[in-house]
Amino acid sequence: MVTSLLMVLPLIVSLVYKEDCYISFLISMGVSLAIGFTLMVFCKTEDRVIYAKEGFVIVALSWLCMSAVGALPFVLSGEIPSYIDAFFETVSGFTTTGASILDDVEMLSHGTLFWRSFTHWVGGMGVLVFIMAIIPASTDRSIHILRAEVPGPIVGKLVPKMRDTAIILYLIYIVLTVIEIVMLLLGGMPLFDSLVHSFGTAGTGGFGIKSDSIASYSPYLQWVITVFMMIFGVNFNLYYLLLTKKIKSVFRSEELWTYIGIGLVSTAVIAFNIRDMYSSLSETVRISSFQVATIVTTTGYATADFNLWPDLSKTILLLLMFIGSCAGSTAGGFKISRVIMLFKMIKREIKSLIHPRAVGVVRFEGKKVDDPVLKSLSAYFAIYVACFIGIFLLISFDGYDILTNFSASAACFNNIGPGLGAVGPAANYAGYSVFSKFVLSVAMLLGRLEIYPILFFMSRAAWSKK
Amino acid sequence: MVTSLLMVLPLIVSLVYKEDCYISFLISMGVSLAIGFTLMVFCKTEDRVIYAKEGFVIVALSWLCMSAVGALPFVLSGEIPSYIDAFFETVSGFTTTGASILDDVEMLSHGTLFWRSFTHWVGGMGVLVFIMAIIPASTDRSIHILRAEVPGPIVGKLVPKMRDTAIILYLIYIVLTVIEIVMLLLGGMPLFDSLVHSFGTAGTGGFGIKSDSIASYSPYLQWVITVFMMIFGVNFNLYYLLLTKKIKSVFRSEELWTYIGIGLVSTAVIAFNIRDMYSSLSETVRISSFQVATIVTTTGYATADFNLWPDLSKTILLLLMFIGSCAGSTAGGFKISRVIMLFKMIKREIKSLIHPRAVGVVRFEGKKVDDPVLKSLSAYFAIYVACFIGIFLLISFDGYDILTNFSASAACFNNIGPGLGAVGPAANYAGYSVFSKFVLSVAMLLGRLEIYPILFFMSRAAWSKK
Repeated sequence: MVTSLLMVLPLIVSLVYKEDCYISFLISMGVSLAIGFTLMVFCKTEDRVIYAKEGFVIVALSWLCMSAVGALPFVLSGEIPSYIDAFFETVSGFTTTGASILDDVEMLSHGTLFWRSFTHWVGGMGVLVFIMAIIPASTDRSIHILRAEVPGPIVGKLVPKMRDTAIILYLIYIVLTVIEIVMLLLGGMPLFDSLVHSFGTAGTGGFGIKSDSIASYSPYLQWVITVFMMIFGVNFNLYYLLLTKKIKSVFRSEELWTYIGIGLVSTAVIAFNIRDMYSSLSETVRISSFQVATIVTTTGYATADFNLWPDLSKTILLLLMFIGSCAGSTAGGFKISRVIMLFKMIKREIKSLIHPRAVGVVRFEGKKVDDPVLKSLSAYFAIYVACFIGIFLLISFDGYDILTNFSASAACFNNIGPGLGAVGPAANYAGYSVFSKFVLSVAMLLGRLEIYPILFFMSRAAWSKK
Repeated sequence: MVTSLLMVLPLIVSLVYKEDCYISFLISMGVSLAIGFTLMVFCKTEDRVIYAKEGFVIVALSWLCMSAVGALPFVLSGEIPSYIDAFFETVSGFTTTGASILDDVEMLSHGTLFWRSFTHWVGGMGVLVFIMAIIPASTDRSIHILRAEVPGPIVGKLVPKMRDTAIILYLIYIVLTVIEIVMLLLGGMPLFDSLVHSFGTAGTGGFGIKSDSIASYSPYLQWVITVFMMIFGVNFNLYYLLLTKKIKSVFRSEELWTYIGIGLVSTAVIAFNIRDMYSSLSETVRISSFQVATIVTTTGYATADFNLWPDLSKTILLLLMFIGSCAGSTAGGFKISRVIMLFKMIKREIKSLIHPRAVGVVRFEGKKVDDPVLKSLSAYFAIYVACFIGIFLLISFDGYDILTNFSASAACFNNIGPGLGAVGPAANYAGYSVFSKFVLSVAMLLGRLEIYPILFFMSRAAWSKK
């Protein structure tokens, strides 16, 4: 039902542009409303307590349903005739991946383009967090939903009440998006373009509306998008701390500095590596910083076909794909905070090998990290790698080359979008088989929901009565 | 001094073949003896107790010295004129990697070829384990050396006395090697070829003496080598159990069955994938099983240029490179027992997410695995991945393509030898820069000694007085 509510906006857009696709939105809204009402009437339950298990199932099921219904307008309007393609595209939208199966995105109508980018914006912060923000009935048990839907190893409540936390997060999200829209408008970008690109940036999604993504816009607009991509890759808790004037603790954030450091070092190395490919220093820096920002924040816009770059630059981008941005942002990937904690854990392990009786303490952001957290972290790392290898192996049966398969798995699993080789920024995912498209769709959901909800959803335990 | 002792054998070989290179062995022996005596005279110590820290430093330093001195015959004979190339080749030998910088191996003299393969045999079981076996003075504290030198997560003593364990391990090793030599001789392979190939198989090394590795030998000989590669990839403890008639516990080994399962499934998929490339079913099976065995045991021989195979087969081989064989064998890689335990840990973590209060137990080979062991295991996994990424990134500065760099890092770090792309079975590592050759040499040592000794050796803590 929320999905049909969300479709009101693209409906208006298609009416404004007097496009035929408004009918497809109307039908889709009708279908999703019908399904919603049916479920409401027939599936009543008295037991409203949500534990971890229910949280997982609710989140997994919601995202699957949303994507299934959200794909309808693409199919009904005839703009993406194949349902699996439309499903792939919608999952890619909601999970803020930005991987596309479209050969020519400029052929789509405004309404469809708007819907496509709007899914990014909705998926970025999480649909269920949105529902929690608007429905007063949500209890404090809903933390399990927030935990399952918001990326990062440690999800805390900003304020005692769950619902208020959700509202604050969404307010920050909306305000930042509006600022970006205004900044883009000031640079002379048309309103429609500003809206869709801001949605894509805010959700760190990456669906564009031009074949060359952002490359044809002015340097000013490219810089605005670069900066805002980085802004949306920061932990939202830091913005809340800024608002409550706790500026000191913002500047003490290890994750923030590591994030900025990774961005600057990668930009510098890549700029040096590609210096002969562009005419001026400013162009080289602009292009390398845009591409670093787009990959590290897992957005997926492009201003250059980095598939044509030297292999050192491609290697750096490939590694950045896995790291991702800060926890608690809209970005995907493994998250920088996890990388930092893993490194500290390694350091402690080496120390304990030499001094077996010494008790090492891992500190992160000034606080001691407890052993159970480290245990889950290392288990998450193992499961993350295992999932990646599984996806990589499954899509390898299609016959593409290793680099294409490897980067396609990385780009979908980490919610980036474009990869290397045959799925580079100038290409798309249309060539994969139906089976691989399904696997990659699951990969995007695994990445966006940080594995456990989807994995649990696919396990027997989720469906047993116990 | 032990190195000079080991050089007696290639010296004899070169004298038998009346080759000039015997002089280079004599000089090398003189140099290493001189260094050994100097160290003995000037570096006397009363304190003979070995703790973990000393164990690490002893192992790391011994392997570095051995490789530095072991490279001399190559340089002095003029057969590998560049010292870094010779160092790379020797490290590759002792670490049982088998990665070569030689364009044409058939140009080498018999003495040098013998030395090259003999380093595999010595490195396979470990030089210090060998010293422990021959020197009666070794105390029970030497377990720290055994632990640092023998691959695998859990190194136990087979019998109460450390020295006896070392002797038993070496006896099994020698007997199996002799059986292989006899089997190869029976198949019509010349004595010299049988010796070097048995050394290469036993140590899971992979240095051959022909440009096409094993491809020109008869199917019978290829099958013998396939079987013996698999035999040397099994945990040596199982052979001890066989000798002591505990056959039941051998057949209950999870690691053994997983090892056999991985081998069979990979062979089947690859055989199906390459079925159109070879004339008969028996040839296809022979070639695919040989290549699977050579990669999974991290040996590195070849009977086909798998670089020309379809990408699915290459992907499977690439993934097998990381898994490696059983713990306690002469093979490299991450080890199958670790993979099994990681998967069980993941399973427990998912269960604990749903039932937070349930205490899950991880069992391996019928025994409960304690939490500290699992903690070290996950830390090892993290450090293993971190090292691999570091190596991959460092050699990427050379300008080779991503697949070459990725597989070169994998092949050296996991002690395999040939990779894909420009370092495939039909190519070699000569094209890498001096810096990359050094990085890859360190990678081979990291892989062979399972990271910690070398990493600790490079850290400040190793050299502080505390």
